[in-house]
Amino acid sequence: MDSRRNIRLLLEYDGTRYHGWQRQKNAATIQQTLEAALERLTGAQVAVIGSGRTDAGVHARGQVANFRTASAIPLKAFQAGLNSMLPRDLAVLAATEAPPDFHARKSARAKTYEYRILNRPNRSPLSHHYAWWLADPLDLTAMTRAAQVLPGQHDFTAFRASGSDNFNPVRRVLAAAWQGEPGGWLSFTITGTGFLRGMVRSLVGTMVEVGRGKALATLLEELLQNGARHLAGPTAPPQGLYLMEVFYEDEAVRLASVPASSISRRL
Amino acid sequence: MDSRRNIRLLLEYDGTRYHGWQRQKNAATIQQTLEAALERLTGAQVAVIGSGRTDAGVHARGQVANFRTASAIPLKAFQAGLNSMLPRDLAVLAATEAPPDFHARKSARAKTYEYRILNRPNRSPLSHHYAWWLADPLDLTAMTRAAQVLPGQHDFTAFRASGSDNFNPVRRVLAAAWQGEPGGWLSFTITGTGFLRGMVRSLVGTMVEVGRGKALATLLEELLQNGARHLAGPTAPPQGLYLMEVFYEDEAVRLASVPASSISRRL
Repeated sequence: MDSRRNIRLLLEYDGTRYHGWQRQKNAATIQQTLEAALERLTGAQVAVIGSGRTDAGVHARGQVANFRTASAIPLKAFQAGLNSMLPRDLAVLAATEAPPDFHARKSARAKTYEYRILNRPNRSPLSHHYAWWLADPLDLTAMTRAAQVLPGQHDFTAFRASGSDNFNPVRRVLAAAWQGEPGGWLSFTITGTGFLRGMVRSLVGTMVEVGRGKALATLLEELLQNGARHLAGPTAPPQGLYLMEVFYEDEAVRLASVPASSISRRL
Repeated sequence: MDSRRNIRLLLEYDGTRYHGWQRQKNAATIQQTLEAALERLTGAQVAVIGSGRTDAGVHARGQVANFRTASAIPLKAFQAGLNSMLPRDLAVLAATEAPPDFHARKSARAKTYEYRILNRPNRSPLSHHYAWWLADPLDLTAMTRAAQVLPGQHDFTAFRASGSDNFNPVRRVLAAAWQGEPGGWLSFTITGTGFLRGMVRSLVGTMVEVGRGKALATLLEELLQNGARHLAGPTAPPQGLYLMEVFYEDEAVRLASVPASSISRRL
């Protein structure tokens, strides 16, 4: 049994400059930036485990990670030290001691993602890296109708990134809903017990085809049944996607407090 | 009389990368980026007039500019051509034909600025370039009280940038108010017939001292009376400031439709 401390981190990052979460050769990633800072802080090699990968350009407001360390540095100093060493586009919002068996990925019970679309005639310089800009008017009612089939357990084969591993494509969605905001903003919030690689962006891309009137609102339902990936819409670009929250067993109660607008009755 | 067309532009920009509005030697500015694009488009030298300067790092959601041209390019093509040539952090939201005497600066009747503060314990990577992060809790009620003295005509000597020109320091504020939003956001919206250089940021810096409990809510009132610039708070950093809207004579009616929350009864 590993006798080292197990420390859990809550992270926010602007994914613009990063090649995603996972360590890569010759490219800046979140994981490796965190590990480098922790190694400077503790003087020892550290392996950081994330709740899951985020792709290049994808943002996080509530990514969770953990690492084991023999260091005796107090939690507050860990957080302050990391935040002073990390670049401005990556920060630790909280550091807590986790139980010995806590594993950011394996212990995760559910996640919430948000996807933001700016639907207006002109591109927005202030939102360029933070939303998908679509000039043609989208039918929010049709997109809302399309999203209604998502809650429940489904085979998401039609919505996984091409080239992704050949694992079980069945996932359970707890809640999924579109919301309109002033200024042409549309946001899609989805909570599920697990997500396939590229699944949220593929679902959004397909619902946008519905919103553009190029596909029927029933397309999602058909794709969940027949798994025909070639009939799904194009994958939405990464800069509109935000990992908002990761839920763990000890926090199951918080799932019940997710805003009613984003949780369906099927929860 | 100048017989050339007079074209008015509505602009949005992310000021992060720019050394402000005004043309400078050896530094990227909004004015010069626009002029370079217009010169490519029209094949002739163009002088762009802005409603006013914005400092380095300050953003705009509704800057207004105009330029004169002998080109016959239709408006839609002007806008589309500019947007295809301009960098991603600068865009034309609208291009319209203006009356011959329209001058973006001299014809302006009022402007609205917004200043955004993120008041939470940890810095925010996603807001680093778009807000002033303040960790210590601010007293929004005290700041709201402080702002109540702003509407009306005052001598803003205490709130102008050091080294600014020696012109008339009297300005008329039409409305000024703080608003709290979920997640630790505080935003200050101010509409006035004119602003001194650095005035909004100096007012915000002084009200933040009030919000921190380091100054009384009556400080603003005193400074408006005695003009003691050395007693004003530190100037708020540029990245929280947004030029939201510029009002012209032909749009005076729109001032009346600014949200009630940001317009005082003294308007």
